[in-house]
Amino acid sequence: MKWSKSFLFTLRDAPADAEIDSHKLMMRAGLIRKVAPGIYSYGTLALRAIRKFENIVREELNKRGAQEILMPVVHPAELWQETGRYEQMGAGLLKFKNRNDQNFVLGATHEEVVTDYVRKDVKSYRDLPFNLYQIQTKYRDEIRPRFGLMRCREFIMKDAYSFDENSEGALKTYQVMYDAYCSIFDRLGLKYRIVQADAGNIGGSQTHEFQVLADAGEDHLMVCNKCDFAANIEVSPAIDKENKKSHEADKPLETFATPGLKTIADLSKALKVPESELVKTLFFATNEGDVKLGVKPVAVLLRGSDELNPIKLKNILGLSNPPLMLTEREVQETTGAMPGSCGPVGLKIPIYMDVGVSGLKNFVVGANKDDFHLKNVNADRDFKAFKVADLRLTKEGDRCPKCDGHLQSVRGIEVGHVFYLGTKYSIAMNASFLAQDGQSKPMEMGCYGIGITRTVQAAIEQSHDKDGIIWPVSIAPIHVHICLLDPQDEEVKQAAEIIYSELKSHGLDCLLDDRDERPGVKFKDADLIGAPLRINVGARALKAGELELVIRQTKEVRKVPIANCVEEATSFIRAARSSASTPRMSL
Amino acid sequence: MKWSKSFLFTLRDAPADAEIDSHKLMMRAGLIRKVAPGIYSYGTLALRAIRKFENIVREELNKRGAQEILMPVVHPAELWQETGRYEQMGAGLLKFKNRNDQNFVLGATHEEVVTDYVRKDVKSYRDLPFNLYQIQTKYRDEIRPRFGLMRCREFIMKDAYSFDENSEGALKTYQVMYDAYCSIFDRLGLKYRIVQADAGNIGGSQTHEFQVLADAGEDHLMVCNKCDFAANIEVSPAIDKENKKSHEADKPLETFATPGLKTIADLSKALKVPESELVKTLFFATNEGDVKLGVKPVAVLLRGSDELNPIKLKNILGLSNPPLMLTEREVQETTGAMPGSCGPVGLKIPIYMDVGVSGLKNFVVGANKDDFHLKNVNADRDFKAFKVADLRLTKEGDRCPKCDGHLQSVRGIEVGHVFYLGTKYSIAMNASFLAQDGQSKPMEMGCYGIGITRTVQAAIEQSHDKDGIIWPVSIAPIHVHICLLDPQDEEVKQAAEIIYSELKSHGLDCLLDDRDERPGVKFKDADLIGAPLRINVGARALKAGELELVIRQTKEVRKVPIANCVEEATSFIRAARSSASTPRMSL
Repeated sequence: MKWSKSFLFTLRDAPADAEIDSHKLMMRAGLIRKVAPGIYSYGTLALRAIRKFENIVREELNKRGAQEILMPVVHPAELWQETGRYEQMGAGLLKFKNRNDQNFVLGATHEEVVTDYVRKDVKSYRDLPFNLYQIQTKYRDEIRPRFGLMRCREFIMKDAYSFDENSEGALKTYQVMYDAYCSIFDRLGLKYRIVQADAGNIGGSQTHEFQVLADAGEDHLMVCNKCDFAANIEVSPAIDKENKKSHEADKPLETFATPGLKTIADLSKALKVPESELVKTLFFATNEGDVKLGVKPVAVLLRGSDELNPIKLKNILGLSNPPLMLTEREVQETTGAMPGSCGPVGLKIPIYMDVGVSGLKNFVVGANKDDFHLKNVNADRDFKAFKVADLRLTKEGDRCPKCDGHLQSVRGIEVGHVFYLGTKYSIAMNASFLAQDGQSKPMEMGCYGIGITRTVQAAIEQSHDKDGIIWPVSIAPIHVHICLLDPQDEEVKQAAEIIYSELKSHGLDCLLDDRDERPGVKFKDADLIGAPLRINVGARALKAGELELVIRQTKEVRKVPIANCVEEATSFIRAARSSASTPRMSL
Repeated sequence: MKWSKSFLFTLRDAPADAEIDSHKLMMRAGLIRKVAPGIYSYGTLALRAIRKFENIVREELNKRGAQEILMPVVHPAELWQETGRYEQMGAGLLKFKNRNDQNFVLGATHEEVVTDYVRKDVKSYRDLPFNLYQIQTKYRDEIRPRFGLMRCREFIMKDAYSFDENSEGALKTYQVMYDAYCSIFDRLGLKYRIVQADAGNIGGSQTHEFQVLADAGEDHLMVCNKCDFAANIEVSPAIDKENKKSHEADKPLETFATPGLKTIADLSKALKVPESELVKTLFFATNEGDVKLGVKPVAVLLRGSDELNPIKLKNILGLSNPPLMLTEREVQETTGAMPGSCGPVGLKIPIYMDVGVSGLKNFVVGANKDDFHLKNVNADRDFKAFKVADLRLTKEGDRCPKCDGHLQSVRGIEVGHVFYLGTKYSIAMNASFLAQDGQSKPMEMGCYGIGITRTVQAAIEQSHDKDGIIWPVSIAPIHVHICLLDPQDEEVKQAAEIIYSELKSHGLDCLLDDRDERPGVKFKDADLIGAPLRINVGARALKAGELELVIRQTKEVRKVPIANCVEEATSFIRAARSSASTPRMSL
């Protein structure tokens, strides 16, 4: 493409709502323009990167026998009601009525629609297995869209759904898709990590996230410094660095006044006890949906130095969303005291105790009486825990659950997710088949997502510098950016056009900046737009018989005889392409 | 693809709601499955045809300098309010609120969004012209979706928008797009016709429709039997075959009783006057939007044998939608009589008279008194027409407006539409630029649509027989359908697999039917799915050293030595491809 004939506009400054580098750069390079919060138009350059990534995804999935279909954006509510997710998904699922007052939703994901699609035709085990995917627009009504395409409302996703006869088959398919995802992200040429994760309200028992590593990532990952263990902090097991179990003898329970001491920090300071040896009591409502019948509270005990992991609590309670904390008033109704003076002794509600607390003896808790605490409290003697479990957030330095290494904290952008779903949807929607033994059985399902538009932004977030984007060659919208430095000089112009045509005929995507602008402006824009290679074509260089090839990533400048310039550029891009296909899984 | 590993299901019978052949065949061949009224999932085969057509469209547009972008499905209401179309589009524009109670619509078309997109960046005439297009999902809340993808709610459309400095530039771009559309539909290989059309509520002064000819088409076209004149009946000028102007002298006006004579047919019979010499009076409300202030009625006079063309009336009244007829009660309030006894004499409202009526003298109309008519009525003497205009529907046999031929009626499926919009949107949305003369001017726009999914169905509607689809090779999801007739015979299976791989390596799309089914079942499915070429691979033929190539369109069977079979198939497809690229514009 030639700049003068294109709709291509760069901005000097990013808009104020762009908080992270990739969002700022996408705005500045004209890749996206905001239409409404979380809703964007994609310019030509962004669309090219998107399409290139889509094609990588397609090739790897087709190679493994997955079949592309296309399901609608607008879904009838009935399908979502069949699985109960019409209610369960909450306000993130956008609901509306059509002109005939019928209920619809905008597709946030397609488990229901695909299950309906297959149940209409599949009859027997002979029709199985198969794996259907689509690349389609999705809409999730995010409460607070931000970070550009990273957490937006309308986005493009590749979603695949596999259907097998039994769980062995489904787990085999899971592995095939896991491998496909490795190939896809290897080809992308970014550093990424595969982590254990929570299944959220998709359901399912086995799941991994593919995370592109970047400091601005919204996901908090715990990775081992010695082995390949990696998990989203949401599910990372918390194991103390040292196993400190107190062997003190039980001391007699005492009540003591603690006027004004409300927080763990206050208590720690006043009692001169480390926070890790104090115990805090938290209260949650376990109700889902209707709360008209009153809240169903539970108490959670943690060491004062620990933080609750709401996902672990959600899973142990068997809920589909993390529970809400009780209000002050509800705490008072439950315990007789305000938060800050509460504890487990005498409570009539289930108590969930973190394993960390079970190592303590003779500890301090609230007395369920305002401004009083109890000391020398011991589990079993003074209260019964309903369940002892791993409920705390993992911290840097915690022990690796797989080896004797310790965990480090890194940030990631979730770009892919594989789930083994089992029969959750096929049972709810009666998607069954006649098995070899003549019985009707629900199909075994898996689902597999890749955030197409999010991945494109993640690539920028991981690969940029202060001047602009540094595209991985695999999805670079432009391979070679040709800066025509003397657009008024007919000879120079012709030379640039020849290079442009020749590179194109070699299959490279080129942008010829033929605008009537100063070289400085063109260089700045080239750095911003971020093609892997730039060629400067100016009168002086032409006279000298050598052109400058500038490598975007390193800013290295290579002087190349004019005659070799196309060959040099072509082989640079080819080499970058093949080096990108080496595995990038980061350990 | 191999059938045994694919998600591919054919049906013996189409569902009851499939009324036309193409809809029935798409359902039976498993191309589409209904998700809700007017909302479909596309199976692999349909998606392949869609993608092939999209690529033809892309190639022809890119060649002409149009640039692909992608705009969202969900639009903020504000943009539609800026142009007034938020109200004007009525219930066909699906409106909803998001979780924050903000108003949105599902994109039915993208004039507003694209105008917003460009006005953010375009500053000067130097930024013009450009032509942006997208291939995107659209949603229109059709009141009565039917005919599968022909009149559905969610569909895929290619929409392009051009922006020029002035109307000369815009009309030049219009011509470029007109030519691009000719190339696109030529390459598709279908019979089509370009017709004059109404601009609907898109706005704009110049417009053509591209119509694929098919008896089941929803559009009624009038085409000349001698020249290239063709128009949608909505805008086709109505010119009487013979110009019969009565030269009778005016006779005196008479009132006479017509008890029980309400219709033109009744009157014609009772008075023994041909319907073409009677005059009927119709009443319409010209209000748009709010009618609280009472209706603003007009009367329309037509010969008894003619039908009103509501689009012509809409345009002459300057409305954006055809006006509604008055209710009986409103007629009574306006005229003093019930419909059937009304006429123009003594009316206080504007009278629009069809040119056909102006040729009549001493005619009969209602007396505006129940069960009475007037005879010997003459325009000018007995009433004044506010306007005389062409208001009737054109009929077969009417004179061609361009030559001395006469018009014939044919049916078409509108697959493409080009509009010269002018400045309707750029003025409403303040999309202006600094012109060469230093003045700020609104951009001159054009818009250009192609119904991608509708075109794919139109291809089937035009090209099928009683056994199934006959795909034009340009968008055939499969070029060669290989029927493996003896799947249990290892040698035959191997032969089929070799042919399959070789055809694929020649770049052909193949389906290998390797199911454990009888040949008859496979032949039936092959005819239904409609690949241009079928190859039968069975034990008997293999022994004889010859295979059968069956041409779908003609059912011709060619016996070909095994060794030549791949070459023969490849050259058949190649030939079909190149013959399809000859112009198909039908005259």
